[in-house]
Amino acid sequence: MTATKVHVLNGPNLNLLGAREPGVYGSGTLDDLRRRCEPAAAAAGVDLDFRQSNHEGELVDWVHEAGRDAAAGVTLGAVLNLGAYTHTSIALRDAVSGAGLPAIEVHLSNVHAREPFRDHSHLAPVAIGVVAGLGPDGYAYAIDALARRREHSTRR
Amino acid sequence: MTATKVHVLNGPNLNLLGAREPGVYGSGTLDDLRRRCEPAAAAAGVDLDFRQSNHEGELVDWVHEAGRDAAAGVTLGAVLNLGAYTHTSIALRDAVSGAGLPAIEVHLSNVHAREPFRDHSHLAPVAIGVVAGLGPDGYAYAIDALARRREHSTRR
Amino acid sequence: MTATKVHVLNGPNLNLLGAREPGVYGSGTLDDLRRRCEPAAAAAGVDLDFRQSNHEGELVDWVHEAGRDAAAGVTLGAVLNLGAYTHTSIALRDAVSGAGLPAIEVHLSNVHAREPFRDHSHLAPVAIGVVAGLGPDGYAYAIDALARRREHSTRR
Amino acid sequence: MTATKVHVLNGPNLNLLGAREPGVYGSGTLDDLRRRCEPAAAAAGVDLDFRQSNHEGELVDWVHEAGRDAAAGVTLGAVLNLGAYTHTSIALRDAVSGAGLPAIEVHLSNVHAREPFRDHSHLAPVAIGVVAGLGPDGYAYAIDALARRREHSTRR
Amino acid sequence: MTATKVHVLNGPNLNLLGAREPGVYGSGTLDDLRRRCEPAAAAAGVDLDFRQSNHEGELVDWVHEAGRDAAAGVTLGAVLNLGAYTHTSIALRDAVSGAGLPAIEVHLSNVHAREPFRDHSHLAPVAIGVVAGLGPDGYAYAIDALARRREHSTRR
Amino acid sequence: MTATKVHVLNGPNLNLLGAREPGVYGSGTLDDLRRRCEPAAAAAGVDLDFRQSNHEGELVDWVHEAGRDAAAGVTLGAVLNLGAYTHTSIALRDAVSGAGLPAIEVHLSNVHAREPFRDHSHLAPVAIGVVAGLGPDGYAYAIDALARRREHSTRR
Amino acid sequence: MTATKVHVLNGPNLNLLGAREPGVYGSGTLDDLRRRCEPAAAAAGVDLDFRQSNHEGELVDWVHEAGRDAAAGVTLGAVLNLGAYTHTSIALRDAVSGAGLPAIEVHLSNVHAREPFRDHSHLAPVAIGVVAGLGPDGYAYAIDALARRREHSTRR
Amino acid sequence: MTATKVHVLNGPNLNLLGAREPGVYGSGTLDDLRRRCEPAAAAAGVDLDFRQSNHEGELVDWVHEAGRDAAAGVTLGAVLNLGAYTHTSIALRDAVSGAGLPAIEVHLSNVHAREPFRDHSHLAPVAIGVVAGLGPDGYAYAIDALARRREHSTRR
Amino acid sequence: MTATKVHVLNGPNLNLLGAREPGVYGSGTLDDLRRRCEPAAAAAGVDLDFRQSNHEGELVDWVHEAGRDAAAGVTLGAVLNLGAYTHTSIALRDAVSGAGLPAIEVHLSNVHAREPFRDHSHLAPVAIGVVAGLGPDGYAYAIDALARRREHSTRR
Amino acid sequence: MTATKVHVLNGPNLNLLGAREPGVYGSGTLDDLRRRCEPAAAAAGVDLDFRQSNHEGELVDWVHEAGRDAAAGVTLGAVLNLGAYTHTSIALRDAVSGAGLPAIEVHLSNVHAREPFRDHSHLAPVAIGVVAGLGPDGYAYAIDALARRREHSTRR
Amino acid sequence: MTATKVHVLNGPNLNLLGAREPGVYGSGTLDDLRRRCEPAAAAAGVDLDFRQSNHEGELVDWVHEAGRDAAAGVTLGAVLNLGAYTHTSIALRDAVSGAGLPAIEVHLSNVHAREPFRDHSHLAPVAIGVVAGLGPDGYAYAIDALARRREHSTRR
Amino acid sequence: MTATKVHVLNGPNLNLLGAREPGVYGSGTLDDLRRRCEPAAAAAGVDLDFRQSNHEGELVDWVHEAGRDAAAGVTLGAVLNLGAYTHTSIALRDAVSGAGLPAIEVHLSNVHAREPFRDHSHLAPVAIGVVAGLGPDGYAYAIDALARRREHSTRR
Repeated sequence: MTATKVHVLNGPNLNLLGAREPGVYGSGTLDDLRRRCEPAAAAAGVDLDFRQSNHEGELVDWVHEAGRDAAAGVTLGAVLNLGAYTHTSIALRDAVSGAGLPAIEVHLSNVHAREPFRDHSHLAPVAIGVVAGLGPDGYAYAIDALARRREHSTRR
Repeated sequence: MTATKVHVLNGPNLNLLGAREPGVYGSGTLDDLRRRCEPAAAAAGVDLDFRQSNHEGELVDWVHEAGRDAAAGVTLGAVLNLGAYTHTSIALRDAVSGAGLPAIEVHLSNVHAREPFRDHSHLAPVAIGVVAGLGPDGYAYAIDALARRREHSTRR
Repeated sequence: MTATKVHVLNGPNLNLLGAREPGVYGSGTLDDLRRRCEPAAAAAGVDLDFRQSNHEGELVDWVHEAGRDAAAGVTLGAVLNLGAYTHTSIALRDAVSGAGLPAIEVHLSNVHAREPFRDHSHLAPVAIGVVAGLGPDGYAYAIDALARRREHSTRR
Repeated sequence: MTATKVHVLNGPNLNLLGAREPGVYGSGTLDDLRRRCEPAAAAAGVDLDFRQSNHEGELVDWVHEAGRDAAAGVTLGAVLNLGAYTHTSIALRDAVSGAGLPAIEVHLSNVHAREPFRDHSHLAPVAIGVVAGLGPDGYAYAIDALARRREHSTRR
Repeated sequence: MTATKVHVLNGPNLNLLGAREPGVYGSGTLDDLRRRCEPAAAAAGVDLDFRQSNHEGELVDWVHEAGRDAAAGVTLGAVLNLGAYTHTSIALRDAVSGAGLPAIEVHLSNVHAREPFRDHSHLAPVAIGVVAGLGPDGYAYAIDALARRREHSTRR
Repeated sequence: MTATKVHVLNGPNLNLLGAREPGVYGSGTLDDLRRRCEPAAAAAGVDLDFRQSNHEGELVDWVHEAGRDAAAGVTLGAVLNLGAYTHTSIALRDAVSGAGLPAIEVHLSNVHAREPFRDHSHLAPVAIGVVAGLGPDGYAYAIDALARRREHSTRR
Repeated sequence: MTATKVHVLNGPNLNLLGAREPGVYGSGTLDDLRRRCEPAAAAAGVDLDFRQSNHEGELVDWVHEAGRDAAAGVTLGAVLNLGAYTHTSIALRDAVSGAGLPAIEVHLSNVHAREPFRDHSHLAPVAIGVVAGLGPDGYAYAIDALARRREHSTRR
Repeated sequence: MTATKVHVLNGPNLNLLGAREPGVYGSGTLDDLRRRCEPAAAAAGVDLDFRQSNHEGELVDWVHEAGRDAAAGVTLGAVLNLGAYTHTSIALRDAVSGAGLPAIEVHLSNVHAREPFRDHSHLAPVAIGVVAGLGPDGYAYAIDALARRREHSTRR
Repeated sequence: MTATKVHVLNGPNLNLLGAREPGVYGSGTLDDLRRRCEPAAAAAGVDLDFRQSNHEGELVDWVHEAGRDAAAGVTLGAVLNLGAYTHTSIALRDAVSGAGLPAIEVHLSNVHAREPFRDHSHLAPVAIGVVAGLGPDGYAYAIDALARRREHSTRR
Repeated sequence: MTATKVHVLNGPNLNLLGAREPGVYGSGTLDDLRRRCEPAAAAAGVDLDFRQSNHEGELVDWVHEAGRDAAAGVTLGAVLNLGAYTHTSIALRDAVSGAGLPAIEVHLSNVHAREPFRDHSHLAPVAIGVVAGLGPDGYAYAIDALARRREHSTRR
Repeated sequence: MTATKVHVLNGPNLNLLGAREPGVYGSGTLDDLRRRCEPAAAAAGVDLDFRQSNHEGELVDWVHEAGRDAAAGVTLGAVLNLGAYTHTSIALRDAVSGAGLPAIEVHLSNVHAREPFRDHSHLAPVAIGVVAGLGPDGYAYAIDALARRREHSTRR
Repeated sequence: MTATKVHVLNGPNLNLLGAREPGVYGSGTLDDLRRRCEPAAAAAGVDLDFRQSNHEGELVDWVHEAGRDAAAGVTLGAVLNLGAYTHTSIALRDAVSGAGLPAIEVHLSNVHAREPFRDHSHLAPVAIGVVAGLGPDGYAYAIDALARRREHSTRR
C-alpha cells in the first residue's frame, strides 16, 4: 500500500514561534514552518499532517493515531518536535515504541548548546534518528529521510 | 569570496565501514559514503574534501586547516563524524571552537539508542547542529545545511 | 455506609494493549483487562468503574473524584496503573495523597526487569502497596486486597 | 498603556484546598484563597484573573495567554503556584520564558521543609522571584510586588 | 508431571513477626503467616513448603533445592520474602536466575514507603513479579499467581 | 506579652550593597534597605533591630539573642538574609532551630537564577518560609508576615 | 527485674585479633579483649556474654536472642562490633531494631580514618550511640554506658 | 613532663544546652556538662580547660593553643564537640592535624540517626576516635581515653 | 618450609555449574573444574584443596584457615572465585587482608561484560591479581602464578 | 593614581607555618613568608600589607577593605591564600567578586595532589588566576603578576 | 587455515618498563617482556608480533590490522595492554569490537589496587577476558588462552 | 652535572594562539609566547626547548624524552601546557610520573572560571605545581620555579 501522508507533530510552546526568542528559534512562525515542510512532503508525494499541541496527553493520542496509520501503511511516519517533553516524558517515548511509529526527533535549535537538562532525550532511543540545530530545514531533511526509508525498507 | 569546497572529516574506525557490523553502520563502505556525499557537494557547487583518520591529533590538525579555509571563505564548513572521539575529546571540541569552524556533527547510527557513554557529545555544544541515525543521507543533509547557511548568512 | 464500586484507573498507552508488544504486556486488550477485573469486583460485591486516559491532568481529576467517593464511603478505593506517569508524575502522587484515596499501584509487566528509569515509582510511597509483573491477575488481586482492607479496617 | 488585571494561575491539586491536609496547606479553600487575593488586586487597581487547572497543557496555554496580555500591557504579570509541576515541568518553564511573562512563583507551604524532590524548581530560574511558606499572604505579597515592579520599571 | 508443592521461603528477621513492630508488619506471627498460605496452596492443589532462615547461605541452598524441584516439575515455584537480603544480596539473585526458579518477590509492608535503601531490589529483575504492602494476603496472591502461571504456561 | 521589636539580620557582603553589582542587588545601600524596613516595622507596631555582620559566629550569637527575645515574647521573630552562609552554614540552621526562633529567609536577588551552588539552602527547612528575588520589598513582606503570624498564632 | 548480664557480640574477622595487623587493631587477642570487658561487666554487676562469629546469619540469631533477654530485662543490652557487616548488612540493622535491642556500636580502630567504604554504618541509626577508635577501652565505655542507661531509664 | 590539664572545646549552639530541644540533647546545661567532666579530669589528675564558642575562627585559635600545650606536654589533648562545624569545617580539621593535637570527637546525640548531612565528619579522619550518642558520659569516656593514651604512649 | 597444597575456594552458586546457564559459565560441572585444576596443582608439586560454599561466613572461616596455612608455609595461597560475594562482601576482603592470604581472584565469565554491578570487586584491591573470562583455564593460570610467585619470592 | 601597596591575605592555620608539617608546607614560618614577599613588593614599588587570620568573617572584612583600596587605585590587588576556606567559603568568593578586588589565589602546597576535597576552589572562578605548589615563590610570582597587570591594564 | 602468529600490542608508557617505577611494574624492560612471551608463542606454534606505541591512533590502526589477520585466520588474536588508554579510549574499544578482534586485556600491575580512575576499563566489555597483576606471566597466560580458544572454537 | 635547557611543551590547539579567541587566550601568537619564555630561560642560564603538538602520543614521546634529559641532569624539567589533554589524558599523567619528569602545569587562561569539565586536571597530582590564568607570564614564573628548585634541591 502506498503512503499518502506524513505526520509532523509539534509539542509545547512551538505555537509561540516567531513571536518570541527569535535568537533561539528563528523569526519564522509555526505557519512558516508548516510552509517549509510542504515542498518536502510534495517531493515525497504525500500530504502533510502538521499539528501542534501543548498537551502531553493529546500528543500521546496523536502518536497513537499516527502509529495506526503507519501500521496501515498510509503514513511515512512522523517528524516529532516534542519541545520540553523530549526531556521529561516517558509517556511519549512509550507511545512511540508502543505504537510502532517510525519517528525522527527534530529540534529547531541546537539543544546540546543550551541548559544541561536539555542534553538528554527520552525519545531518542526509540526514534530512528535525531536532527537538531538546523532550523526549519531540519524538518525537511527528516521528511526526506522518512520517504527514503520507505523506499529502501531495508535501510537503517 | 565564493566557497569552493566542503570538508567531510571522519574519525576513528570509520575506515572499517562495510566490513564489520553492518547491522549498526549499514553495509556501505567509506568509499560508498564518499560517493553519497558527492551529489550533495555538487548541488552546493563545491568540491568535496573527504578524509578519514584514526588519530585524534591528525583530526585536530585537519580541523585547524578547515578553520583556516573557513576564515578565508573557501570552504562551506565541515561535516564532522568524530566517532568515539565525539564522547571523549575535549581537544577536538576546542579545535572546532578555537578555529571558528562552522561544523555539523553527524553520526551514521542513532548513538542515543546504544550504550549510555555514547549519549553525551563534547562536540555538540560548539557545533551548529547534529544529525544522527539517518545513515549516509545524514551527511548529505549536513552538506546541504552548510550550503544553505552560507546563502542565508543571517540564519541561526 | 457500604461501598458500591471500585475504581480501576489506567494511564498512558494502556489503550494500546493487545495491539502492540504482546511480549511485554500480553496479548489481551484493554477490554479483556476490564473483563478480567469484573469477577473480582463482583466477588467484592461492587461495580467496576474502569477507565483509561493518556492525559495526566484527566487522571488527576479522576483521582480527585475517586477520593471524594472514598471519603463518602462509596468506593473501595482505586487500582492505579499509571503507566509511564508512575515514574515522572509528582502531581499524581500529590493527587492520591491529597485526596486521601486508598490506592494500590499495579503494573502488568515486571517494571524492575526493564529500563533503569522504570525502577523508581513516585506513586508507591503514598500507595497501600504494589503488584507488578503478574499480568491482568494483578488487577484482580488488587481489587480483592481493597475489599479485604475495607472488611478489616484495622489492617495495614 | 495601563494594566487592568493580574493573573493568578494555580496548578494541580490546588482545587483540593481546605478539604485535605490542612496541616500542610491551611484550612482555607481555593475560594478563600481567591478572596485573599482580591484586596491586593484592588490595591493595585486591577482586576483579578484567578484560575486553577490540573492539566499541564492547559496551564501552558494560560501562560501563553497571560504572556500576550503582558506584551499588550494589560496585565501586571502572573502569580504562579504550579504545585507539583514546579518540580517536573520544563514545558511550563519554557512557556514562561518563551512568552516573556513576568511571573512570581508562590507556594502556600514551605516546600523546602518537605520531601527532597520538592527542593528544586524548574520555574524559579525564569521567574522574577519566589515566595514560599507564607500561606495565602504570599499571594498578596506577590501581587503587590508585580504592581510595584510595574511602577518602577527599572527595578530588578 | 504434576507439581505437588509450592515453596515459601522467608528471610532474615521474619521469625520476629508478631513479637515486634506490629505497626509495620502486622500483629500476626510467622505461624499465622503460614496458616494464611495454606488455603492458597490447597486451592492450587499442592502442599506448602514453608521455611524461614536468617542465613543468606542457607537461603541460597534452599533456592537451589527449589530450583531442582522446579526443573523436575514438582514445585509450582517459590514465593520469596528475602527481607533485608532483597536489597543487599546479589548471591540470592544469582541463585534464583542460576537455578531457573520461578519466583515471586513478596513483602508484607510497602517497602517503597520506608527508608530509601529499601527502594531497590536486587531480586526483582530476575523474579516473575513483585507484591508489596498487602500483608499476608500478598503471599496468597503470589501462590495463586504461581498456580495460574503453571496452568497457562504461555503467560508472561 | 506584646512584642516590641522585629529582628532583621543580614549576613556576609550585604554591607557592600549599593557600592557594587547593582545589576544583581539593586542600587540601594544597606541604609536604604534599613529605611525600606522601617515603615513595615512601624505598621506592625514594633521597633526595628537591624544588623549586619560578615562573621558566621556573630550571626549565630545574634540568632541566639533573637531566640531568647522570641521566647520572652518581645520580638516578632527574625528576617534573615544570611547571604552566602545560607548555602554553607549548618551552624546557623542549628542556631535557628535550636533557639526556636521564628524566621523568614529573604534574598534580594533570585538566587535560583544564579550559580547552581546557590540553589540549595541549609536554612530554609527550619524557616517559616522564603522570599527571594523581590528586592528590598521582600524584607517588608517578611516583616508583615511575621506580624500577621503573631496575630493569628495558629497560622503557618 | 534486675539484669544479670551484658552481651558483647563480635563480627567477622575479629577472631584474627592479635595475630594480624596490630598496627590497625592493636596486639591484643580476642581473649585479651574479653578480659578487658570483664571488669566493666563486674562494675555493672552483671555477667559477660561474649561471643564472636564470622556468619551474618548467626549474628542475626544472637541479636534476636539478646533482644529477647532485653525484653525480659535480664540483659543490659549489647555492645556490637559487627566488623565489615557494619557497612553492608541491613539484615543486622533490622535485627537490632526489630528485636528492640539496646545496642552500642563499637569499633577498635577509627573506621573514619580508613577506606571511604567504612565511613557509613547501616547499624548506627538504630543504635544508642557509637564508640570508634578507642581500642578495647571502647568496649568498657560501652558496657558502662549500657549500665548507666539502665540506671537512668529516662536518659537518651 | 607531666600533663596538668585536659581541653574540652565545644562548638556552635552548645551554649543553648538545656534551654532547647532536650529530646535531642538532654535537659542538662553547658554548666552541667562541665560538672560531668570534672570528676573524669580529677581521676586523670589534671585540671579541666572547658570552653565554648560559636565562632569557627575562635575554635581554630583554641585548637592551635591546645596543640601548643600538647607539644609542651602540659595537656592530655582535647575532647572536641564541634557541633555543626564537624560537618562543614575543613579549617578545623586542618587545625587539629596541623597543630598535632591529640583529639577525640564527641557528640551528645547520635548524629548518625539524624539528618543525612550529619553522617559525615570532616574531623573524624584526623581524630583518635569518635564517641557519639552517649550524652555527657561520652565526654567522660573521652577524657579517660586521653589519660590512658598518655599512660600507654605506645597504644595506637 | 615447602608448601604441600594450594587452596581453591569457590563461592555462592558455583555448585550449579554445568546444570544451568552454560552460555555464561560453560557446560562443565564443579567436578570438571576441580579436575581441570589438578594438573596445575600437580605441576606445582602440591595437593589441591578445592571447596565450595554458598555461605559467606563459611568462606570467611576457610580464608582464615588458608591464611594460617600460608603463614605456616604449607600452602601456596588461594585461588578465590567468590561469585557474587566479590561485589558485596567487605567481610571477605577483610578476611583476605587480615589473614595475610596470598590470593588471586578468578572468574569463569568476563564479569565486566555483564551487569554494571559486577564491574567492581571489593576483593581485587587486596588480591595479587585478577583473571576473568578465561573459563576453567583461568584457575590453572592462577595456580601456576601462585607457584611461580613462591619460587621468586621477590616478584611484585 | 599610583598604587602604593599590595595586599597579601593569609587564611586559617597559616600561622602554624614552620612549626608543623614541614613536609607539606616547607620549614619556613609566616614571618619568613612575609620576608619572601618583600622584595617582590619592592620591585613593584609598593608596600606590603601582609596579614593572617583564622576567622572567615575577618577575612571577608579585609577583602572588603582591600576592594575599597583597589577602587581607589591605592593597591595593586591581593594575593589570597585562603587555606581551607578556599574549598568551603562562598562568602569569601562573594566578597572578592562583590568588592571587585583583583586577586590571585595562591597555595604553598600542590592542593591537587592531596585529598579530593582540596581539588575544588570556590575562589578560583572569581580570581585572576591560581598559583599552587610553588612554595613561597608562588607569592612573589603573584605579586609580580599583579604589578604587571596594572602596567598593562588591557591584559587578561 | 592455520594461524601463524599472535599479536601483543602494548600502549602508552610501556616503553618505560624497567627504567622507572620497578615497584609497580617490575624491573624487566619491554624487551624482557617480549622474551617472556616468546616461549608461549612457540608453544602455541606461532610467531610473535610484539609492538608498542604511545599513540592512540596508531594502536587503533594496529588493532584494525590484527582484526584483518584474525578474519583471515592468520593470527590467534591479540594480547592488549593498552595502559592508560584502557580507562579513557572508547576509540580503541570500538576498534576491537568493530574489527572483530579476539582480544585479552592484560595489565602487569593490579590496576584495581591503585587509583580509583584505574578501576574501570572501557576495553574489558568487548574483550574475551582480563588478566591483571600477574606481571609478565599474565602475557604468557593470555597467549596460551588465545591458543586454546582457537583449538576449542566452541569455548567462551 | 649542570642543566643546559628547560622544556616547554604545548598541547592541542595552542598553535592557534593569536589567531582566535584573544578574549580568552590573549592576542599573542605561539611565537610571542616562545619569545616571552626566552628571557626566563636566559635568566636561568639554560636554552629553551619549546614545542607544540596536537598529538597526545607525540606529547607522551616528548615527555619521555624530557624525562630522560632530567634523569641525565641536562634539563631543569618541563613547563607543561597540555591544553584539553589536561582534563582527559591519563596517558600523559602516567608519562610524567613514569618518566620522573619534574613538571609544572601552566594554563594561559583561568581554567577554573570556564566550563566545569575544565576544573579537574589529571596532570596536577603528579606535577610540582600549577600556574593558571596569568597569561604568558605564567610560563616565565614556571621556568623560574624550575630553576630555583634545581638550586635548592631540598625544596618541596
